[in-house]
Amino acid sequence: MNSITLLGMLAAFCTTISFLPQALKTIQTKNTSGISLYMYALFTFGTLFWLLYGLLSHNLPVTVANSVTFLFAAIILSYKLKYK
Amino acid sequence: MNSITLLGMLAAFCTTISFLPQALKTIQTKNTSGISLYMYALFTFGTLFWLLYGLLSHNLPVTVANSVTFLFAAIILSYKLKYK
Repeated sequence: MNSITLLGMLAAFCTTISFLPQALKTIQTKNTSGISLYMYALFTFGTLFWLLYGLLSHNLPVTVANSVTFLFAAIILSYKLKYK
Repeated sequence: MNSITLLGMLAAFCTTISFLPQALKTIQTKNTSGISLYMYALFTFGTLFWLLYGLLSHNLPVTVANSVTFLFAAIILSYKLKYK
């Protein structure tokens, strides 16, 4: 594996896992006042489209990364809708 | 352009532009209480790594999309650090 591929994997890891601390914080505090509903609506649909794109184009990294991010984003969106 | 490529472009548009309403909300309200510092630290560095990856691998869509997202993420992170 060359250094550019490694940089791409590090990038994918950071952006994918970053939604975990947000999901945990939102679940624990139920504080969604500073969170944008429009952001999470767009982002949740966006990751769902990436997931479908990954499946249809047989791209495993895109499918796996976006399955994880879609799950976290959907949790945050559902809390935002419940605890406005 | 086939329908799978179109789905990928729709996905990229949604996930890239989604951080704009969050950045605007954070700038206007300065309310960052529900926002996770760890999320935006990881996400900002993640998009920076994606940006470098895009530049080094001569991938224009990755470079452009992550330049935009990095800008929004860095603004939100700076507000989170300033208005804890």
